[in-house]
Amino acid sequence: MHKRFSNSILSAKQFNKNNLLEILDVSEKIERTLKKQKEIPLLKEYILATLFFEPSTRTRLSFEAAMHRLGGKVITSVGMQFSSLAKGETLFDTLKMVEAYADICAIRHPVEGASVLAAENISIPVINAGDGAGEHPTQALLDLYTINKHKSLIEKKLKIAFIGDIRYGRTIHSLIHLLKHFECELTFISPSEISLPEKYKNELNSHSISFLENENLNKAKGADVLYVTRIQEERFTDRKIYEKFKDAYIIDKDFVFKSCPKAIVMHPLPRLNEVSTNLDDTPNAVYFDQAKNGLYTRMALILKLLNINIE
Amino acid sequence: MHKRFSNSILSAKQFNKNNLLEILDVSEKIERTLKKQKEIPLLKEYILATLFFEPSTRTRLSFEAAMHRLGGKVITSVGMQFSSLAKGETLFDTLKMVEAYADICAIRHPVEGASVLAAENISIPVINAGDGAGEHPTQALLDLYTINKHKSLIEKKLKIAFIGDIRYGRTIHSLIHLLKHFECELTFISPSEISLPEKYKNELNSHSISFLENENLNKAKGADVLYVTRIQEERFTDRKIYEKFKDAYIIDKDFVFKSCPKAIVMHPLPRLNEVSTNLDDTPNAVYFDQAKNGLYTRMALILKLLNINIE
Amino acid sequence: MHKRFSNSILSAKQFNKNNLLEILDVSEKIERTLKKQKEIPLLKEYILATLFFEPSTRTRLSFEAAMHRLGGKVITSVGMQFSSLAKGETLFDTLKMVEAYADICAIRHPVEGASVLAAENISIPVINAGDGAGEHPTQALLDLYTINKHKSLIEKKLKIAFIGDIRYGRTIHSLIHLLKHFECELTFISPSEISLPEKYKNELNSHSISFLENENLNKAKGADVLYVTRIQEERFTDRKIYEKFKDAYIIDKDFVFKSCPKAIVMHPLPRLNEVSTNLDDTPNAVYFDQAKNGLYTRMALILKLLNINIE
Repeated sequence: MHKRFSNSILSAKQFNKNNLLEILDVSEKIERTLKKQKEIPLLKEYILATLFFEPSTRTRLSFEAAMHRLGGKVITSVGMQFSSLAKGETLFDTLKMVEAYADICAIRHPVEGASVLAAENISIPVINAGDGAGEHPTQALLDLYTINKHKSLIEKKLKIAFIGDIRYGRTIHSLIHLLKHFECELTFISPSEISLPEKYKNELNSHSISFLENENLNKAKGADVLYVTRIQEERFTDRKIYEKFKDAYIIDKDFVFKSCPKAIVMHPLPRLNEVSTNLDDTPNAVYFDQAKNGLYTRMALILKLLNINIE
Repeated sequence: MHKRFSNSILSAKQFNKNNLLEILDVSEKIERTLKKQKEIPLLKEYILATLFFEPSTRTRLSFEAAMHRLGGKVITSVGMQFSSLAKGETLFDTLKMVEAYADICAIRHPVEGASVLAAENISIPVINAGDGAGEHPTQALLDLYTINKHKSLIEKKLKIAFIGDIRYGRTIHSLIHLLKHFECELTFISPSEISLPEKYKNELNSHSISFLENENLNKAKGADVLYVTRIQEERFTDRKIYEKFKDAYIIDKDFVFKSCPKAIVMHPLPRLNEVSTNLDDTPNAVYFDQAKNGLYTRMALILKLLNINIE
Repeated sequence: MHKRFSNSILSAKQFNKNNLLEILDVSEKIERTLKKQKEIPLLKEYILATLFFEPSTRTRLSFEAAMHRLGGKVITSVGMQFSSLAKGETLFDTLKMVEAYADICAIRHPVEGASVLAAENISIPVINAGDGAGEHPTQALLDLYTINKHKSLIEKKLKIAFIGDIRYGRTIHSLIHLLKHFECELTFISPSEISLPEKYKNELNSHSISFLENENLNKAKGADVLYVTRIQEERFTDRKIYEKFKDAYIIDKDFVFKSCPKAIVMHPLPRLNEVSTNLDDTPNAVYFDQAKNGLYTRMALILKLLNINIE
């Protein structure tokens, strides 16, 4: 592992089981504390820079709220445009600038590897807030936290069904890197055109995680967790196949109540219609709680990277 | 009234006279306090989210300064684009996100009703910072505060003349909802093409507020308050009518000194040339003070919504 | 000098030698203090407004970090668009708004003179953060600080070589206004098409600063400071001349080690390829440190304008 990875969050691959348990534990402490008080003022003199080379209001605000809830300050560069790493020297120079102004930074960039480039070249901790087709490790951590909060990862072997675009769904790939450290059974439900890439299958096999692939939503029956992502029409060469699955994969109250009434339904958001709004008021729907959990896990990560302990 | 309205500011219609007097009173206290100190640190652990789905730098900065002067923190989403409530589920989901990250939010949206949708669905207080052709209640409150500060609303029956675009001027409509609770005489001066819509006349009548409509600026003679808005050429089918009034409705030093030398001149800003800059240095011009008053009234509203009292 | 200049930073021309020595001194104190602590909380109740009518992420973040490191708060208006001072009344009105919301402001505007207009009309201190072809005084101050930090301006007569676009390089022009107060020898290396404008030559002469102009990079031999700026193709009517100099003016390790091994290499950034990245890891390269120095000098300026002393 690169020397700099130790104080940056660049990939979901960088964690071992102990790291994860520690992050879950600190996140839980934070959630509990924020029920009693609005702020945990451990970072009063620290500055977070959020560098978003592509827009992602949801993720950016989550990081900024996390820093504020820790008493810290934020500088932000929304709307900087960089077409590619072909302008790499400018990205490098921009990052050097940030090093001078902030104590920690979160980077969102359309090009895979941008945050690694950052971590290799600047002296402050870097958090990958999504880089192109690459990783989105903080999303994976908040997903893991959500699963563990509602369905313990330790007490039983969870059945987790992923539904939708398994091939391009970056958040699913990052989450696989974390789930492989726990006992669980995974089911990947998608049209074969957008099924799980080989390398993730290999990784699951090498960790002895049993998994199943199928096109039929009924295979989600009895699941503890439904993790839904959007299917995009443009992924299909044959429009008919898209039409066939588009409606087959709508998760609604009826389906959940019949097939897996105790399941939690997750979605990385934004959703379109793949999760019906008729689920919103049910206890099964945890996708809004999931967003909230992003606050706690990001607070935990920021503290960890700055070597600050919550009592 | 919808249950949620009680802790949100959605419409100028929601206030009764006591509410208004209380807001004016707290705003005054705040203005007085800020003469002695830069900050009233009552909200040190609170986060305001400013969600501006259309740009309005003036209003946004006013809210953000208000929160900072209360010691609080701000997260902001400038430049989010939503074409219509047809994408309503996304707006809904976005709002749910904000609920997780902030303690109170101010929403500006091009579609009427957006802030009501917000208040109905999220658990934190919502302030309507302007929604399309709809309401702009905080502007109305700062206008009311400005009138009362310079010309008491209580001590005498004020003569208030509105000049310009009375038909589409959202700030005028919102202000009417507040003024109806006080003794006053209103004069609406505009070309008939852009005169006061029927429903506001009915409302004034039902509150026994006497008012006059006229095309002639001379009817503003003797007014205590001139409230000026811009006339837009595109409102007229006949260009000649526009040309006729364009120059008739320029409020300058000469006009004010002759017709109503004690009047205050207000404008919601931005102005073009309907209020002459030769007024800027006169005591009559209060439009810059008006902007400052937005700070005090917005601070008062934020405190009220969060149930925090200024001693 | 205009009455308002005394509490605004509008031009590099406004400083005398004592002013400069004082700013260098306070900046040094700040740099030393920030080695021991992250924040110098002297401005806890103050608000800085950064008004950027054209984007400059680097400069904006530097100001915002400076304010945060002083414990202060920031409101920002990125992306306001004003096509020209033909819309001057709106610029004026916008500035009046800022006066109501902030205690100090930094303005970046594409039109020369915008910050002077601001300082003349609003009651809070104004800092010119770059106005069109005009001035960029805070850049000049951080450049001066960088030179003095690495090569004392007092102890010896420094040899400073400027390389690149001397004609349009705004940062060079502003820096000349500061350097004229110190003993130094200047060399301006550029194609004659983009050489030093007459008025700066006159100014240097009137302060008895000796200087040399030449097209040949070799004249930089023995320099204490190399100040490099980018040459833009569009400045040349004859493409061949551009081609000739483009490669002649690349400052790299080889050149520096042979010609002026003790020189510091400065660049206002962003750079393209006129300073080779093979210099980045050498002690000669101070351009990233230069950016850091912007933090200290801007903190010093903000404190000075608000009449707050660092003990």
